[in-house]
Amino acid sequence: MKENPAQMRLRIRRGQWNRPTTGLAAGYVQANLVMLPREEAFNFLLFCVRNPKPCPVLDVLDPGQTAPRIAVGADLRTDLPKYRIFERGELKSEVGDVSTLFHDRIVSFLLGCSFSFEAAMTAAGLPVRNLEEGKNVSMYITNRSCTPAGPFSCPMVVSMRPMTPEQAVRAVQVTTRFHLTHGAPIHIGSPEAIGIKDIDHPEFGDPVTILPREIPVFWACGVTSSLAALSAKLPLVITHAPGHMFISDLRDEDLTVF
Amino acid sequence: MKENPAQMRLRIRRGQWNRPTTGLAAGYVQANLVMLPREEAFNFLLFCVRNPKPCPVLDVLDPGQTAPRIAVGADLRTDLPKYRIFERGELKSEVGDVSTLFHDRIVSFLLGCSFSFEAAMTAAGLPVRNLEEGKNVSMYITNRSCTPAGPFSCPMVVSMRPMTPEQAVRAVQVTTRFHLTHGAPIHIGSPEAIGIKDIDHPEFGDPVTILPREIPVFWACGVTSSLAALSAKLPLVITHAPGHMFISDLRDEDLTVF
Repeated sequence: MKENPAQMRLRIRRGQWNRPTTGLAAGYVQANLVMLPREEAFNFLLFCVRNPKPCPVLDVLDPGQTAPRIAVGADLRTDLPKYRIFERGELKSEVGDVSTLFHDRIVSFLLGCSFSFEAAMTAAGLPVRNLEEGKNVSMYITNRSCTPAGPFSCPMVVSMRPMTPEQAVRAVQVTTRFHLTHGAPIHIGSPEAIGIKDIDHPEFGDPVTILPREIPVFWACGVTSSLAALSAKLPLVITHAPGHMFISDLRDEDLTVF
Repeated sequence: MKENPAQMRLRIRRGQWNRPTTGLAAGYVQANLVMLPREEAFNFLLFCVRNPKPCPVLDVLDPGQTAPRIAVGADLRTDLPKYRIFERGELKSEVGDVSTLFHDRIVSFLLGCSFSFEAAMTAAGLPVRNLEEGKNVSMYITNRSCTPAGPFSCPMVVSMRPMTPEQAVRAVQVTTRFHLTHGAPIHIGSPEAIGIKDIDHPEFGDPVTILPREIPVFWACGVTSSLAALSAKLPLVITHAPGHMFISDLRDEDLTVF
């Protein structure tokens, strides 16, 4: 039985789903979450606006608010399956509910995620190796610096999907439409050119098979937003746990340009 | 002799050009300017992010900064031909230089402007009646509310260009590419449907001729950002004077999606 986003969020809220959200409520937009203190919210939003490819803003809530505009009836304190709690940039714990930590000067940011364009790539007959192999997508820290804002600065993180050069051309076309979920690739081919030393050892996620004739294609990745948030070593930052995203009411097609 | 953006900004800075910037440094992006106090900068950026069609963010400067990233050597205090000074939402004066008013807690926002896609429309053989008739574009206040943020709230302002239905289809295609300069139209046809009572009496700019067989086509307009900034009745808000825009080093094509 296929559940809609509201039903799925309710199951998560009740503690009935604490695993990654890949493939859930297919066709609906999933989002990266960053929560941080009001005092640095302007600078963090500035960081996102200055780096729209890795950090596309889907929704920003007023301080203390927990109900996003992009999901009716949702509560960001309870509706993600797993959260990470950071203090001064250090991971302190993983929890299933942040109600006791949240307070009225915390601002929540929801940022686009590549799950949206993976469905479109599949529909276009393009390979999405991580899905084929049942793995998390391969992610790498590059030598490209994001444009800093206030105390926030970090390198760009990319996700990689291998395919043939012909398929890469088609993938550029397909993902260009999704400008709020990372859009077109930022690099095609040589990993070394963007500072990736070993394609078989991603910094996040799993390695995937690269077949003969295939080249790696790189997209800006939402993990960049977590790195940026942690770079300021704030007293408290809350993010989703990797792969444990927020499921919104937006449809993937709502985020396309054309 | 065609001047480049840096040369044109220098002429403006020296007081050698105090007229509208339409047609200057053709092919380069011109921008709306809003300057306001640091205390409300987060909410104003939030307003822009929540209303990206009328208020597409091109650049936001750190508090007290005057050199935008999108124009080398520029100074936002001097490089626009005319500024408007508002106190508590009321127009106080028009000046050619805001150096004495600017201080280290003012944040400057540069927002996209439809001049960018007008060049593309002309290149595609589409009519841009305001250019043909040497007038300012017709602008109207609609009955569509922008999504508010903090103290900022206002209706959406639109610009209108008349054309045949066939040309309107092509105009959707041409302007869709320019998502950072308002993108595709927000409405085609009946002015009444978006709360415009008299198409011959625009709230801003000039009326233009609508030929037989032509329908009005409406785009979200950057004037919305001025209305929003004034809605909060802040002690001080500085904007560009209508038509007297900031000329950046970005090329129109730099802002296209595909």
